[in-house]
Amino acid sequence: MTAHWKQTHKNMMLFSGRAHPELGEAVARELGMELTTTDARDFANGEIFIRFGESVRGSDCFVIQAHNKPLNKWIMEQLIMIDALKRGSAKRITAILPFYPYARQDKKHRGREPISARLIADLLQAAGADRIVSVDLHTDQIQGFFDGPVDHMHAMPILTDYIKSKYPMDNLCVVSPDAGRVKVAEKWANTLGDAPLAFIHKTRSVDVANEVTANRVVGEVEGKDCVLLDDMIDTGGTIAGACRVLKEAGAKSVLIACTHGVFSDPARQRLNDCGAEEVITTDTLPQDTEGWNNLTVLSIAPLLARTISEIFENGSVTTLFEGDA
Amino acid sequence: MTAHWKQTHKNMMLFSGRAHPELGEAVARELGMELTTTDARDFANGEIFIRFGESVRGSDCFVIQAHNKPLNKWIMEQLIMIDALKRGSAKRITAILPFYPYARQDKKHRGREPISARLIADLLQAAGADRIVSVDLHTDQIQGFFDGPVDHMHAMPILTDYIKSKYPMDNLCVVSPDAGRVKVAEKWANTLGDAPLAFIHKTRSVDVANEVTANRVVGEVEGKDCVLLDDMIDTGGTIAGACRVLKEAGAKSVLIACTHGVFSDPARQRLNDCGAEEVITTDTLPQDTEGWNNLTVLSIAPLLARTISEIFENGSVTTLFEGDA
Amino acid sequence: MTAHWKQTHKNMMLFSGRAHPELGEAVARELGMELTTTDARDFANGEIFIRFGESVRGSDCFVIQAHNKPLNKWIMEQLIMIDALKRGSAKRITAILPFYPYARQDKKHRGREPISARLIADLLQAAGADRIVSVDLHTDQIQGFFDGPVDHMHAMPILTDYIKSKYPMDNLCVVSPDAGRVKVAEKWANTLGDAPLAFIHKTRSVDVANEVTANRVVGEVEGKDCVLLDDMIDTGGTIAGACRVLKEAGAKSVLIACTHGVFSDPARQRLNDCGAEEVITTDTLPQDTEGWNNLTVLSIAPLLARTISEIFENGSVTTLFEGDA
Amino acid sequence: MTAHWKQTHKNMMLFSGRAHPELGEAVARELGMELTTTDARDFANGEIFIRFGESVRGSDCFVIQAHNKPLNKWIMEQLIMIDALKRGSAKRITAILPFYPYARQDKKHRGREPISARLIADLLQAAGADRIVSVDLHTDQIQGFFDGPVDHMHAMPILTDYIKSKYPMDNLCVVSPDAGRVKVAEKWANTLGDAPLAFIHKTRSVDVANEVTANRVVGEVEGKDCVLLDDMIDTGGTIAGACRVLKEAGAKSVLIACTHGVFSDPARQRLNDCGAEEVITTDTLPQDTEGWNNLTVLSIAPLLARTISEIFENGSVTTLFEGDA
Amino acid sequence: MTAHWKQTHKNMMLFSGRAHPELGEAVARELGMELTTTDARDFANGEIFIRFGESVRGSDCFVIQAHNKPLNKWIMEQLIMIDALKRGSAKRITAILPFYPYARQDKKHRGREPISARLIADLLQAAGADRIVSVDLHTDQIQGFFDGPVDHMHAMPILTDYIKSKYPMDNLCVVSPDAGRVKVAEKWANTLGDAPLAFIHKTRSVDVANEVTANRVVGEVEGKDCVLLDDMIDTGGTIAGACRVLKEAGAKSVLIACTHGVFSDPARQRLNDCGAEEVITTDTLPQDTEGWNNLTVLSIAPLLARTISEIFENGSVTTLFEGDA
Amino acid sequence: MTAHWKQTHKNMMLFSGRAHPELGEAVARELGMELTTTDARDFANGEIFIRFGESVRGSDCFVIQAHNKPLNKWIMEQLIMIDALKRGSAKRITAILPFYPYARQDKKHRGREPISARLIADLLQAAGADRIVSVDLHTDQIQGFFDGPVDHMHAMPILTDYIKSKYPMDNLCVVSPDAGRVKVAEKWANTLGDAPLAFIHKTRSVDVANEVTANRVVGEVEGKDCVLLDDMIDTGGTIAGACRVLKEAGAKSVLIACTHGVFSDPARQRLNDCGAEEVITTDTLPQDTEGWNNLTVLSIAPLLARTISEIFENGSVTTLFEGDA
Repeated sequence: MTAHWKQTHKNMMLFSGRAHPELGEAVARELGMELTTTDARDFANGEIFIRFGESVRGSDCFVIQAHNKPLNKWIMEQLIMIDALKRGSAKRITAILPFYPYARQDKKHRGREPISARLIADLLQAAGADRIVSVDLHTDQIQGFFDGPVDHMHAMPILTDYIKSKYPMDNLCVVSPDAGRVKVAEKWANTLGDAPLAFIHKTRSVDVANEVTANRVVGEVEGKDCVLLDDMIDTGGTIAGACRVLKEAGAKSVLIACTHGVFSDPARQRLNDCGAEEVITTDTLPQDTEGWNNLTVLSIAPLLARTISEIFENGSVTTLFEGDA
Repeated sequence: MTAHWKQTHKNMMLFSGRAHPELGEAVARELGMELTTTDARDFANGEIFIRFGESVRGSDCFVIQAHNKPLNKWIMEQLIMIDALKRGSAKRITAILPFYPYARQDKKHRGREPISARLIADLLQAAGADRIVSVDLHTDQIQGFFDGPVDHMHAMPILTDYIKSKYPMDNLCVVSPDAGRVKVAEKWANTLGDAPLAFIHKTRSVDVANEVTANRVVGEVEGKDCVLLDDMIDTGGTIAGACRVLKEAGAKSVLIACTHGVFSDPARQRLNDCGAEEVITTDTLPQDTEGWNNLTVLSIAPLLARTISEIFENGSVTTLFEGDA
Repeated sequence: MTAHWKQTHKNMMLFSGRAHPELGEAVARELGMELTTTDARDFANGEIFIRFGESVRGSDCFVIQAHNKPLNKWIMEQLIMIDALKRGSAKRITAILPFYPYARQDKKHRGREPISARLIADLLQAAGADRIVSVDLHTDQIQGFFDGPVDHMHAMPILTDYIKSKYPMDNLCVVSPDAGRVKVAEKWANTLGDAPLAFIHKTRSVDVANEVTANRVVGEVEGKDCVLLDDMIDTGGTIAGACRVLKEAGAKSVLIACTHGVFSDPARQRLNDCGAEEVITTDTLPQDTEGWNNLTVLSIAPLLARTISEIFENGSVTTLFEGDA
Repeated sequence: MTAHWKQTHKNMMLFSGRAHPELGEAVARELGMELTTTDARDFANGEIFIRFGESVRGSDCFVIQAHNKPLNKWIMEQLIMIDALKRGSAKRITAILPFYPYARQDKKHRGREPISARLIADLLQAAGADRIVSVDLHTDQIQGFFDGPVDHMHAMPILTDYIKSKYPMDNLCVVSPDAGRVKVAEKWANTLGDAPLAFIHKTRSVDVANEVTANRVVGEVEGKDCVLLDDMIDTGGTIAGACRVLKEAGAKSVLIACTHGVFSDPARQRLNDCGAEEVITTDTLPQDTEGWNNLTVLSIAPLLARTISEIFENGSVTTLFEGDA
Repeated sequence: MTAHWKQTHKNMMLFSGRAHPELGEAVARELGMELTTTDARDFANGEIFIRFGESVRGSDCFVIQAHNKPLNKWIMEQLIMIDALKRGSAKRITAILPFYPYARQDKKHRGREPISARLIADLLQAAGADRIVSVDLHTDQIQGFFDGPVDHMHAMPILTDYIKSKYPMDNLCVVSPDAGRVKVAEKWANTLGDAPLAFIHKTRSVDVANEVTANRVVGEVEGKDCVLLDDMIDTGGTIAGACRVLKEAGAKSVLIACTHGVFSDPARQRLNDCGAEEVITTDTLPQDTEGWNNLTVLSIAPLLARTISEIFENGSVTTLFEGDA
Repeated sequence: MTAHWKQTHKNMMLFSGRAHPELGEAVARELGMELTTTDARDFANGEIFIRFGESVRGSDCFVIQAHNKPLNKWIMEQLIMIDALKRGSAKRITAILPFYPYARQDKKHRGREPISARLIADLLQAAGADRIVSVDLHTDQIQGFFDGPVDHMHAMPILTDYIKSKYPMDNLCVVSPDAGRVKVAEKWANTLGDAPLAFIHKTRSVDVANEVTANRVVGEVEGKDCVLLDDMIDTGGTIAGACRVLKEAGAKSVLIACTHGVFSDPARQRLNDCGAEEVITTDTLPQDTEGWNNLTVLSIAPLLARTISEIFENGSVTTLFEGDA
């Protein structure tokens, strides 16, 4: 026998892109470890340079990157980091995208369009990612775009626990801003003590083609403390409009909750002005409460840290978000 | 120069599996051609044997298969046909699945589940399919499961044209059987003269966990001729229940319309008994009107034939279902 | 240094499809473990649903499936199970197909045919199988159809040990039912004390094209206890015919032995009536001795269990079937 | 519309490696065209340099290479030619291997062996070959090693036509040199007027393990003109031995026929000395009749030329070797 | 026969990203066609939306994108355009990257770095590009990073023709700014009437580790009209320094020539101030002569147009830049 | 819980091809282990047969092969060994190519050429290699040809340490034999106490096109002990010529150093005759000092052994050749 036997060990390394370093650091703190030092720089023409501060050989590597603006840059940075890990002999590479970019382009709405959400999965695979972790994908089907394991985490318990701790449960009503999110709203209502449901329905003008003339509340909201939710809020137009419609329909108060607070201009202005009691979001994207009337940011870091730990330890991520699993 | 130049021609060949030969023949008739003779047999132990009756070398091949029961057999038959085409030097292979099997398993509903709809796309690709044609996918995102062109056709115009031609438009109301299909119902309502919308909302018991206690109609259906729609009807439980709720809510009549009439037992009994005026479907799956009170089957063959023709001729399939494309 | 080092453990999990659960259970018993609970159901239209009862994350997973009738369904079930394991983060997935389906279609017999045995290998790979275990492949070359390790086990020792223990060795003669299996018969003869060889040779009519007119025994069988063998017996026509020819040629008795007892109708009738002393097979496919005159079923489970154990432990499977390895 | 439409033409180009340029030239002559000039040279350390003499852009390219000694060099040369065609924008690349190298290693005979015949298919694919043409593969299953079309041509009609034209048919007997080729011998017997069959069977010593003690003729050969056939003859030991056994068994004469005359030393000596009337082969490998008593070389070039032509024209290659196709 | 034969046509379509639309338009003009209308927009959070104005089905598609700042955005845009073409059934997709991004990261300079130039090739392939066209790659080996045809065009003749037409040839001297470009300078010298060569050599301090202390001219430049060249000029530090060293060494005048004028800040200032007679570049990147003392921009569009035409027509691109091909 | 947990071990196995067994043995000795017994033989027609002497299941396998003449044979042997490891269930396969074959064909020098160095990477991947180790690649970009980790080792410290130990440092001058290697020479000069640099520059005849008329030394070499270096020396023409030019320019002595001593005929003669003091190389290729005036061969085995050890132990290979890493 010519074989040399050795006992095996494994190790975990955590990396963060430059899009949202605070999140990476918070996750590292939760895990009781440090981010691996990474030299990440822009050349004068915008090309990104990456070099890790120590050997990644044989390691179980987790690469966190947020996808705020300039989003395409941060996508490329994460791909380049993954390529460097692959070529540096990492054992396994997990790409963590708390907010999955291009998730809204998850189908061809009409002919001659891309399916950019699938493209993102293909690019991650081409660069060398073995698996993906993401939070509250725009549609669940995006899991099927990647040819490998996808750990799809849910931020709802974080948001609902906060609401439960701060607001009385007996007068709540869960509201979806459009017909497409009613199923999600149903899950929230379930969690919030089987609260009643409502949603905003857009109706069209009979006279003018393709013109939306009115937003109508379906369900009883009068005198209710409404929880208006969405997976992401970008410029805030829809959600601020929904808030106003709820107020007009007699809602006592409106809380706005979303996992991904993109908050592109003029979201802050709109949400400050719409009359909402509080806007609750998470830090899947970098947040700054300055200039906001009442923005609350809950941290996704403990959830990500537990997920990473379970993946490394080969535990079951399912138990993180399924009481009955 | 040693090259031998020749003018190029191309040719189209059409094949049908054994699941629903009438559909293949109908498509061939529409195209003014014949199905290529295929020797397809089962061995005693259930293995399928395939041999084509003529050379497929260099041809643009279209393989139609329906996916009724025994559905797994017909999947394997289509895969074997594609393998035989690939090894027989077909130039391009288009798999036509009017009803996409396993479309309901398009995500992990909970942990430790497959994404079978993605698996089907992977199997087609492994066998050698270059492209897919399907009709009314359960969710649009399934397009993104295949790494290549997917022509996603819509049967709505076929169904709505029939309704328009037979029923007065002025008293219609479009109804979705649950919250998840309201967006689709909106498109129907648009097409049917901006008809009003309604849908059935399931509410839960306060007393008993996880028990659905009531189906409530949201929207005005009293005195209306309701068009109750879905992409597919399997055993018919949900849709028959919805029909009854509509009747109880005062609907004048109920039409049931779906693209894919799976009609597993006891769908026929349920739909015969539920009080619907008419059940309208297409022949994406083989249909038999015997034993039905009022089943109408519209043919998908002209739509498939035009799609095939456009693909072969390199026209734009988009124009088949988009007035403004 | 930012790496977190941990000692590594590995674990094995065993899964069985629904085609032949007794085999899976027998293998588990041999290994002193239990099958992982799997929720496997058919939807009304025949679609299969799979969900595992516990986390498979990081596990070395073995998926046993038999391929009896309805064979295409069981192929799809195994593929779906593999997809669920892949997406559930299994570390390594071994597909165990004791009887490899479509093995007879291992080449294009004529033009325009598939090579379905290669297709099966491609489908397993597309679903996510890392390796294959099979028993007595129809031809050894099928090993080369899979782009990865194939552990090809042999049932001959199980069958010959049984024969040795029950029948006197001094009057045996090994018989192949046709010219294509003589090489295999040679190995059996070797093992059975260098027993003499014979086989059945089909001769054609001079007068009528393509008509087989006679089966002739080549070799001395008069007064011998013949062991007539094949890799699989499907409808039993060939083997029952061979048995009769041997009897007519003066054989004292005939034992029939095969690894894969497919036994499609009317195999039982034919083998009961052909005059064979005993029919010996294994449980690579589910067997039922009811209605048989003299069917003996030997268990393949210990062989599979040892193979799985060797794969998990990184021992050498070769030593299981090669005395001189 | 911004598209620029043009009528399409296609062209064919033919290339030959340096292993057997006469075959390439003969094929080109049959096709009425010329081989594309190729600068092929060896550097001092044995590295091969390739450059084509004209543009291959958009062409249907056929690359002929024989695989005589030094066989590994000629494999690499063909792979390098294919790489150059791929990078030079050839439209389609067909690798022609009249003698498929490493065909005998088409399975793991024992554990820890390669399946080199599959490896050859993988290397051709990695280099960029879209399809393969070969003649009389050692086993038909090798077709399934390549993930694409394989045109498997048969030289039997060329050999049997020659025999028919030169020898009287009424006293022929077809002989296989071992049990494994009896099925092929059956096809020959069929073609040669349903000639009787025989073959050589190796029996083992009872006393000494693993020692072959005798070759026995099975079938009637006394007074017959025997046609002893094989797919390939390498050193000629088996076939010369078989010839002698036939003579001893009373054969009137022995013809030896094989598709692939590898004829490694000391094949010529052995075949000259074994008493055969004539040795018939083809030029799938370069042949030199010098020093042979009675070697006849039939040309495979017309068969290859027709195959190429059918592939280019999208006709059916099947008809080339199947009367009933 | 069931095949429907048709004569084949092919068509070409040209697309441009938003990085440098003037170049796309110039190429289209050269080809006598128009760019296909493309709806390209940024969503508020930076995600790019793409939709083509007409069907691309069956077309030979060429996608031009420049890679100036914000370079990562333009990479993603080109990838998304390619994905949309693939899903829209384009027949062939050629990605044109006049300036190949990340070309300087074509190797691991030290451990734990990416090879981003290879990553770019992998991403293009993952998105669906069949082939690449680029101009003056930083190193020729980048051609080998893509698994398919790469047409590597050279801008040297455009630059040298301009110099020949404007400056007397008899006093020229070709200068490389560092040792790594001397081979390229040799080709220029060859073209410019076998002009003498020189280059700048960096020497290190003996006293201080890793400090470059001096740039020394190697070769005779006194009284000469120097042509100082590079493939790309980014911030201009090296080249401006080289210019000064040449002047100090007695050069009569200095011309600066480069294919890719990246000109990141403060390149313009540096090149204006360094004493060069003229700075000559091409429009592989968008150029603006405002604020420059003496910048000349030559158009690459005719070269790209001829390349596209040759690819579409299946001519030989090699002849575009090789007099002796 | 049905999982069976076990502690994990790993083991390393080392294999050597037949091209240069002494190197494999030397590496094994350095590692304190033995090469795994491998049965490697040539069949009469040149086909290679491989079988390993013990199970490789689950092992971390390293396959060393040198690439001297007949180089194509040794490439095929290494590919076949890798295939056998893959099919024998090796856990990870590292191909070690101390001298990377076909490295000079790392780009298309002109149109219609292969990129054979990329092809080699593709073939290794197709066979099943997970990673590559090589020494002093002809160009660093070849690292990017392989889609996985490449450990690129440098022999310079071995060569320079030897020179430092034997020759006085104060009179050295580092010389590149042509302009393309000046950057490498710079690194040597750095290591050899910031020795001065020089190189040989080829100038062309003004009168005769394409004729190189003279080799000119650039830099001061008079009275110096010149170290003339290259990555590989094949027939020795360039380097022997350079040596003579240096002598004519007044060099006191000339040392020749190269990593890869290919030494094809008539290299030995030329290098013996050129007047060099000593020729220093390594054993990346088999060397024989017989017939040489003054050839010194330094062993690469310790470097390879440490690299293998680091890969197996997951240490950092970077530290082997980077003082400042």
